[in-house]
Amino acid sequence: MKRLILVRHGESEWNKLNLFTGWTDVDLSEAGVKEAYEAGKLLKKEGFKPQMCYTSYLKRAVKTLNEILDAMDMDYLPVEKSWRLNEKSYGAIQGLNKADTAAKYGDEQVLLWRRSFDVQPPALDMHDERSPRMDARYAELSDEEIPLTESLKDTIARLLPYYNGTIMKSLEKYDEVMVVAHGNSLRGIVKELKGMTNEEIIKFNIPTATPYIFEFNNEKKLEKDYFLGDPEEIAAKMQSVANQAKKK
Amino acid sequence: MKRLILVRHGESEWNKLNLFTGWTDVDLSEAGVKEAYEAGKLLKKEGFKPQMCYTSYLKRAVKTLNEILDAMDMDYLPVEKSWRLNEKSYGAIQGLNKADTAAKYGDEQVLLWRRSFDVQPPALDMHDERSPRMDARYAELSDEEIPLTESLKDTIARLLPYYNGTIMKSLEKYDEVMVVAHGNSLRGIVKELKGMTNEEIIKFNIPTATPYIFEFNNEKKLEKDYFLGDPEEIAAKMQSVANQAKKK
Repeated sequence: MKRLILVRHGESEWNKLNLFTGWTDVDLSEAGVKEAYEAGKLLKKEGFKPQMCYTSYLKRAVKTLNEILDAMDMDYLPVEKSWRLNEKSYGAIQGLNKADTAAKYGDEQVLLWRRSFDVQPPALDMHDERSPRMDARYAELSDEEIPLTESLKDTIARLLPYYNGTIMKSLEKYDEVMVVAHGNSLRGIVKELKGMTNEEIIKFNIPTATPYIFEFNNEKKLEKDYFLGDPEEIAAKMQSVANQAKKK
Repeated sequence: MKRLILVRHGESEWNKLNLFTGWTDVDLSEAGVKEAYEAGKLLKKEGFKPQMCYTSYLKRAVKTLNEILDAMDMDYLPVEKSWRLNEKSYGAIQGLNKADTAAKYGDEQVLLWRRSFDVQPPALDMHDERSPRMDARYAELSDEEIPLTESLKDTIARLLPYYNGTIMKSLEKYDEVMVVAHGNSLRGIVKELKGMTNEEIIKFNIPTATPYIFEFNNEKKLEKDYFLGDPEEIAAKMQSVANQAKKK
């Protein structure tokens, strides 16, 4: 049996402030650090033993992974970081308050930017200080690869080469692999693994810092998938994420 | 100009308890976490921009590196971990109190185990629960590679293939590389870089969580090396490490 463990990062400072985050490199909140560590303790208690880990270029995901590995006493595990696992870019609305943005553009428009499959928020200018082109960590990216805004469709498109070429390929070598990333990059992975339609995936909410386990048989066929932890707590976390999409 | 940044991990829980640590996977103390973060802030303030990082398989080094990268807002940097950067193995005296051990074997014998170049402490049994053979993270190592005890000479011998084949080689690709490791594995690197004799290196004490900078010219020749930070604080830290070797 092979296992893939997906974990969405813990609560960030901007989740609390109700700002659009996207590619902004926001830190975990204190609660976010704690829920990440708890996720690691749970994985350890349930006997998980990942051999390889992947995460994004963003602090909130890297630090969630660090906390998980520390709680598992597996700080030594190899970790590979990729911009392709980054959150969906929210373009020019990154850093704006969600309520203010809804007041300015209307609830319906904001909901489209947040929860449609292929509508992009307004794009950043390449030379905007928030543009990835201005950030040394993305120096390796071509202008074509730099996302100035993204729909979920775009996010999945830039994720897929890494998902197929690196993550799923590593399951040929390893029995257990862990990916710590973001709500929308993980949606891309879940959509692929479960063959979901565009409509299904936009309605699917992944709770924060909750290990989501995929088990494969020896023919690489997905046999089952489940969240690890107390079902009531998980349902509450999923509801909280779903409500976030509704609230101004 | 190329730069190599060496950092010894911050204070660990067992430094405080005065126990022999070696390959035991002991956590950082609260003070250790703090001094690691401070080292990162200093590196950031002084404009350092490492592109590649190396550390050991031991929690106290990995977490020191994590804190440094977080303070630098460079959590996204690639990190490679290797057992060859681990601390010197203290064999069968790992986990023992330094004062008790000195009382049992005599001050002189213990000083030889701690500060001679080629005297090994008593070896662990391969099946001792403290043996690396019993630890899944070292499954990749052959029986010949598993250290059941080490002199500084042994530590340097197993470090060198990684130092030459990976760390120094990476300076061909990158302008700035950071290594976060341990008192004795870093001694091996410093001995090579500065061409020190066996006698010189055993007397050389590297302060904790203090960036030690090596600058090379374009012909890969070492031009200068220096510690980063307040000279008085650094001198006090070096003295404190030196005194540790003396105290029972």
